[in-house]
Amino acid sequence: MASMSEDDLLTVISRHLPASTATVPTGDDCAVLSPAGDVAISTDILVEGVHFRTDWSSAEDVGWRCVMHNVADAAAMRARPMSLVVAMVIPEGLATEWVEGFSKGLRQACDHIADQTGPIAIDGGDMSRGPAIMAAGTVVGDMEGREPVLRSGARPGDLLIHTGNLGASAHGLALLEAGETGSEADLFRRPVPPVALALSVPARAMMDVSDGLVRDARRMAAASGVSIALDSDRVAAAASPGASLHEALTGGEDHGFLAALPPGDVPEGWSIVGSIHAGAGVTVDGADLGELGGWDHFTA
Amino acid sequence: MASMSEDDLLTVISRHLPASTATVPTGDDCAVLSPAGDVAISTDILVEGVHFRTDWSSAEDVGWRCVMHNVADAAAMRARPMSLVVAMVIPEGLATEWVEGFSKGLRQACDHIADQTGPIAIDGGDMSRGPAIMAAGTVVGDMEGREPVLRSGARPGDLLIHTGNLGASAHGLALLEAGETGSEADLFRRPVPPVALALSVPARAMMDVSDGLVRDARRMAAASGVSIALDSDRVAAAASPGASLHEALTGGEDHGFLAALPPGDVPEGWSIVGSIHAGAGVTVDGADLGELGGWDHFTA
Repeated sequence: MASMSEDDLLTVISRHLPASTATVPTGDDCAVLSPAGDVAISTDILVEGVHFRTDWSSAEDVGWRCVMHNVADAAAMRARPMSLVVAMVIPEGLATEWVEGFSKGLRQACDHIADQTGPIAIDGGDMSRGPAIMAAGTVVGDMEGREPVLRSGARPGDLLIHTGNLGASAHGLALLEAGETGSEADLFRRPVPPVALALSVPARAMMDVSDGLVRDARRMAAASGVSIALDSDRVAAAASPGASLHEALTGGEDHGFLAALPPGDVPEGWSIVGSIHAGAGVTVDGADLGELGGWDHFTA
Repeated sequence: MASMSEDDLLTVISRHLPASTATVPTGDDCAVLSPAGDVAISTDILVEGVHFRTDWSSAEDVGWRCVMHNVADAAAMRARPMSLVVAMVIPEGLATEWVEGFSKGLRQACDHIADQTGPIAIDGGDMSRGPAIMAAGTVVGDMEGREPVLRSGARPGDLLIHTGNLGASAHGLALLEAGETGSEADLFRRPVPPVALALSVPARAMMDVSDGLVRDARRMAAASGVSIALDSDRVAAAASPGASLHEALTGGEDHGFLAALPPGDVPEGWSIVGSIHAGAGVTVDGADLGELGGWDHFTA
């Protein structure tokens, strides 16, 4: 690959990417998009040795995660994920096949999301040499006239509901750490955020669960000025098959959704995991967890 | 800094960032923007040891470049740069002061652009540990009802015009490599894309000059299906003070703008550097340059 120019490498990558629906597709200084409403933007980064290991995750798995981490952030606002740009760092000597596989993973994830909520494409990118593989994705979501759902909208009396594979990523990672590299570890390698369920839920508050249920619930509680009570029986019932209660409470990277819903019927595909109260902080079965629970790679 | 959480570090950074005009500011899963027209998006990455050295560029310089590289891409479409998100990799042991300085540089560059074309803010970010400093910026530009200006619009008979500090970055880099670390090297450390001039020019084709005049002219020629004739006397006259003809022809990272203009008056602030003809490729004073000229860190 040392003899390939950046333009040549882009040509290889672009063969594997989904067809763009952009008004001006990638290839110029910018892509130009025509959203139907306001736009939601967010960025999320994956770094080799921090977020993934190349012996545990294939290039396609890493491309998949790059898309899913980002589209979950858009869907958490009730924005339809419509476009991504991806900046990559590629170490000298990395096989061209890895970069191709990464592109295929981007494509597979975009196809999966497109089946749920409509077309999404990779509408730009940048590449550089560097000491480790790194992929920084940025998503553009289309509000399509909907009001954004913030973390700050939860009110006392609301139900706390969740959809997604709670604890699945932590459980898959535990399997990998135990030496089990089979398809069960895909729970870690291939998170599946249920974006269509997020776009349709009549929630007062919502967020992507990326750092663990307890840690992210604490953020919703702080933003909303409320207390959140988690019910361990309900959390265990909502957990992904195989995931322990601990994995369901503290495991990150599932990219499910946590929402506060006014009392009433719970939409299909969602599970009650707790309730919203006056006060502050997060409790599990009434006990204050203090600073425990969740993933922060700056302090871990 | 090892004891700071990601949330704590974000608090430090956010103290130095420009005030957001976003409908929903950073702090939720996404920021939400309300552009007046279609949106232009592009991403651009800076990697320690590839694009900058910490002994040559301050943290503020790197933040400045992160903004300028990206806003130039938006302006090259005639989109007003309105928002940025920035994903960062921060090595263990990097001083918090560096991250603060980087944030100040983002702010200084946003303030500089705001003076030219209106408010722009940092509306999101992500951070990770990793082996080298890395900053991936993504810009959102607002077309504000204007038609995007593509690279593919140049037509035989058009004038080739340029605005910006042509060859300045290469000249500043040469000074640094010769051991001169004074303010003259700011030509490299602090590129200044004239975004207001790009937004107002009635060009048929335009692009950001990021990889060198000859290399980028070749891209415009290929996209437009034309030949571009550069005139070395005019290029030398348009070059940044101190920059050699070679630096003006091949130096990258200036983030000026190259445009094809129908014959007629040249707008103030722009200089003629050549002309558009039927054919293919780029010539300088009539000579074919082959594959020479410009910056590609994959083959360099």
